Amino acid sequence: MQNLKLVGSKDKKRTIIKIDDVEVGKDLVVIAGPCSVESEEQVMITAQKVKEAGAQMLRGGAFKPRTSPYAFQGLGIKGLKILEKAKNVTGLPIVTEVLDPRDVTWVCEFADVLQIGTRNMQNFSLLKEVGKVNKPVLLKRGMYSTIAEWLGSAEYIMNEGNTNVILCERGIRTFETYTRNTLDLSAVPASKELTHLPVIVDPSHATGKPSLIESMSLAALASGADGLTVEVHHNPPEALSDKDQALTPKEFSKLMKKIRKLHTFMGTM
Amino acid sequence: MQNLKLVGSKDKKRTIIKIDDVEVGKDLVVIAGPCSVESEEQVMITAQKVKEAGAQMLRGGAFKPRTSPYAFQGLGIKGLKILEKAKNVTGLPIVTEVLDPRDVTWVCEFADVLQIGTRNMQNFSLLKEVGKVNKPVLLKRGMYSTIAEWLGSAEYIMNEGNTNVILCERGIRTFETYTRNTLDLSAVPASKELTHLPVIVDPSHATGKPSLIESMSLAALASGADGLTVEVHHNPPEALSDKDQALTPKEFSKLMKKIRKLHTFMGTM
Amino acid sequence: MQNLKLVGSKDKKRTIIKIDDVEVGKDLVVIAGPCSVESEEQVMITAQKVKEAGAQMLRGGAFKPRTSPYAFQGLGIKGLKILEKAKNVTGLPIVTEVLDPRDVTWVCEFADVLQIGTRNMQNFSLLKEVGKVNKPVLLKRGMYSTIAEWLGSAEYIMNEGNTNVILCERGIRTFETYTRNTLDLSAVPASKELTHLPVIVDPSHATGKPSLIESMSLAALASGADGLTVEVHHNPPEALSDKDQALTPKEFSKLMKKIRKLHTFMGTM
Amino acid sequence: MQNLKLVGSKDKKRTIIKIDDVEVGKDLVVIAGPCSVESEEQVMITAQKVKEAGAQMLRGGAFKPRTSPYAFQGLGIKGLKILEKAKNVTGLPIVTEVLDPRDVTWVCEFADVLQIGTRNMQNFSLLKEVGKVNKPVLLKRGMYSTIAEWLGSAEYIMNEGNTNVILCERGIRTFETYTRNTLDLSAVPASKELTHLPVIVDPSHATGKPSLIESMSLAALASGADGLTVEVHHNPPEALSDKDQALTPKEFSKLMKKIRKLHTFMGTM
Repeated sequence: MQNLKLVGSKDKKRTIIKIDDVEVGKDLVVIAGPCSVESEEQVMITAQKVKEAGAQMLRGGAFKPRTSPYAFQGLGIKGLKILEKAKNVTGLPIVTEVLDPRDVTWVCEFADVLQIGTRNMQNFSLLKEVGKVNKPVLLKRGMYSTIAEWLGSAEYIMNEGNTNVILCERGIRTFETYTRNTLDLSAVPASKELTHLPVIVDPSHATGKPSLIESMSLAALASGADGLTVEVHHNPPEALSDKDQALTPKEFSKLMKKIRKLHTFMGTM
Repeated sequence: MQNLKLVGSKDKKRTIIKIDDVEVGKDLVVIAGPCSVESEEQVMITAQKVKEAGAQMLRGGAFKPRTSPYAFQGLGIKGLKILEKAKNVTGLPIVTEVLDPRDVTWVCEFADVLQIGTRNMQNFSLLKEVGKVNKPVLLKRGMYSTIAEWLGSAEYIMNEGNTNVILCERGIRTFETYTRNTLDLSAVPASKELTHLPVIVDPSHATGKPSLIESMSLAALASGADGLTVEVHHNPPEALSDKDQALTPKEFSKLMKKIRKLHTFMGTM
Repeated sequence: MQNLKLVGSKDKKRTIIKIDDVEVGKDLVVIAGPCSVESEEQVMITAQKVKEAGAQMLRGGAFKPRTSPYAFQGLGIKGLKILEKAKNVTGLPIVTEVLDPRDVTWVCEFADVLQIGTRNMQNFSLLKEVGKVNKPVLLKRGMYSTIAEWLGSAEYIMNEGNTNVILCERGIRTFETYTRNTLDLSAVPASKELTHLPVIVDPSHATGKPSLIESMSLAALASGADGLTVEVHHNPPEALSDKDQALTPKEFSKLMKKIRKLHTFMGTM
Repeated sequence: MQNLKLVGSKDKKRTIIKIDDVEVGKDLVVIAGPCSVESEEQVMITAQKVKEAGAQMLRGGAFKPRTSPYAFQGLGIKGLKILEKAKNVTGLPIVTEVLDPRDVTWVCEFADVLQIGTRNMQNFSLLKEVGKVNKPVLLKRGMYSTIAEWLGSAEYIMNEGNTNVILCERGIRTFETYTRNTLDLSAVPASKELTHLPVIVDPSHATGKPSLIESMSLAALASGADGLTVEVHHNPPEALSDKDQALTPKEFSKLMKKIRKLHTFMGTM
């Protein structure tokens, strides 16, 4: 459907995106941290724990898209400053969501990677704006979007000049209710055969269940994913959003050991 | 899930929204016109035909959200000026989509009703911006959205002060492929029992098939809808978007006769 | 996809199926009664009430397909005998589900119409068996089935010689949770344009909510449906299955008045 | 929803099912072979090739559930005799589908494992019948079924006395069209945490695309699956059903090497 001249072709070399010391598309990349930035204490503790466990980047939302206007909407610029501080201490690059085209320029001062969330995958004004800046973009698949539409959205960004797009499969909406969404791992090899972009997986939003995150993380790597983004909270029951799906730092540390082991193994296949 | 204090309660009177001579929520309201504004000739012809057939408002997109950046993106301000001219000639109020929060203020100079499209139903920055202006908002249901999420989005708009929200059911995404989407008419009585807002139905995007539009229009009115929005093009095979689903002016005129007849009948039930 | 030589063609006359005094496909047909046959008292009361209200046939399940083997499975032959008695008293033809190919022959002794339920729409052994007998078949659409697959199943029945098939749209499975299923009324005109078979609608299973049944019944008729099948229970809170979706006889009587009024009106369009 | 007293509890030991030399639930089990039995030559060639490549069982359908009655319906008993001959030559146990409760007893004379297909997951008469015999059952998840409903169906079988049930995730129906179905690998750890039954995965029907089968097979094992069922045809373009998704024997042999390597590695985690 869409013109794939930018997004991919079999002749093209695969895209590798360098973010500080990590090469996304080549190295294993694990992005970890809380769903929302809630307090300095929360972020500093979590950042240090995920750094120790071996994460390559820190995630945290300062602007939260919520179904209801009365739910916690994020700390905004205060949240971004907390993330900046966490970066200064841990050295971890920051991945954070941008929701509004008017915020893109100044959020770039705090973010190393701009995240486009699942609800904004077809917010074309926002896609064009992040296409004009010089920061890698983590493009989450719409929970309601076909692979073709997802790649169309990547093309919007790249068409503006920013070719550093990382795709992120995060589960689609189906009739199944045991999991929060249905993780569509076929989208990993599918997007790899259709494009030259790196692809990571978000098992936290996909499953919504800590007990399934390890299995789905390993499956994601085995399917060919270049990495993961995982929600970690130092005290999940007190999280202000998505409290039921975050791992504790201890669980995350255990997960990282297995992930690294499998990643090394997959390199031998 | 969401706080319904703004969107609805059984005690509240139903919302009626006056737009020029029409009272949405009380009178039958049929919004008709092309998917995209393509040329002055196209809009002028179509506007006059739908006016003659009895439509209450004119629709037409000047900004088009398209899956691919290489597809026709709309005429922008030039398109809005064409719509303005059509209003001057026919007297029909204009319903047109706004895609970007930065455009809301100046699009208000041309539009009588601001449309939030299905892909932007959870573009919260945009919802807040249209919540701050003094124009009615036509809020299309996300093709992937539950009724609860749809009402949450209405609440975002109303929470900013603009309580003139018209809900629009336009089909949801399912496994069925015979129709473009699956028209969920249960959402009409459901949103009526959960809120005091008027609800209209878009059979054109829902079915994507001219042969089904009459049946679904009649069914929508019988289900309790306050009106319809229907795509009409003076020459459907040459339309630049959604060319397979527009009615001709002649088909639309025939439809209007039945719609009016059924609407009158429903008033006696 | 399927060969439509049996199921429909524009040249063919529409199928009309005579069941006692009713001509399905021509007259309005409303099938009413409880989800399950639970007791003689329940069926006799309900049958008389729906007869008085103007229903044309009585429905009731003697064999119930249930997700769990520990849920109420129906009264079996005892249930069929109760239905027979209700027919003797009220004169209403009986519509009842058959689940097993081995039961088809003897269930025919009690049933005027054999119902194939949504879970058995692609139980091809059962379809072939009901295709061999001389009783009309009410073929419910699979909750997971495309229109093309539904017509393929009709074709299985007709291919064995039994051409008296009544299609029944009863809602499909989607992500929406406010309703039990999503009633796909587009399937009514779609199946009418693809086949010459009569089509009825089941608003009870589709919505699972008594408050939505009236609206969806009226919408079904306006969409072109030949009739309805509606769950009615003399004491819904005590029903052994689907207790939350049955109408009381009083609600059903009120519904019938509106249905008949709208049906007469639609005849003038 | 369902009573899980039979299907699983944390106290119970995991079920291991011995079929000739393989212990399903403990050993790696790969079931391979054509979608349909088409000829003796086809089955004998394929059986020997998959045996050489390391498959543990042979699959092949003698009765085919097809959307249209005019599509190839399988060879029936002739097909079963061909499978029997293939078993005699290769020693591979036979997995074959049964569609009709009346066929269960005699199909047991040919089959080592009875397969319940996705369209029959809620064919309760059939489930009860296979629950009465002394053969392991491979229970495919309905393409439209929740995990809870799938386990309810397992419970129907076990409730009749046959506790040798192998669950098989084979993809669910969603809006995505790039793949035939959406493989829901979360169902693997989910069903493992809810039951003590072995779980295998069918990447062929799930993806419908040979290019995705390797990735999804590896992902399935990494997610904790006990094995796979894979379609292999000695000449895929000439297959009478599902011709676009079968692997060639050579591709299957390459896949088996990777599968075994990963399976061994997963044992060290």
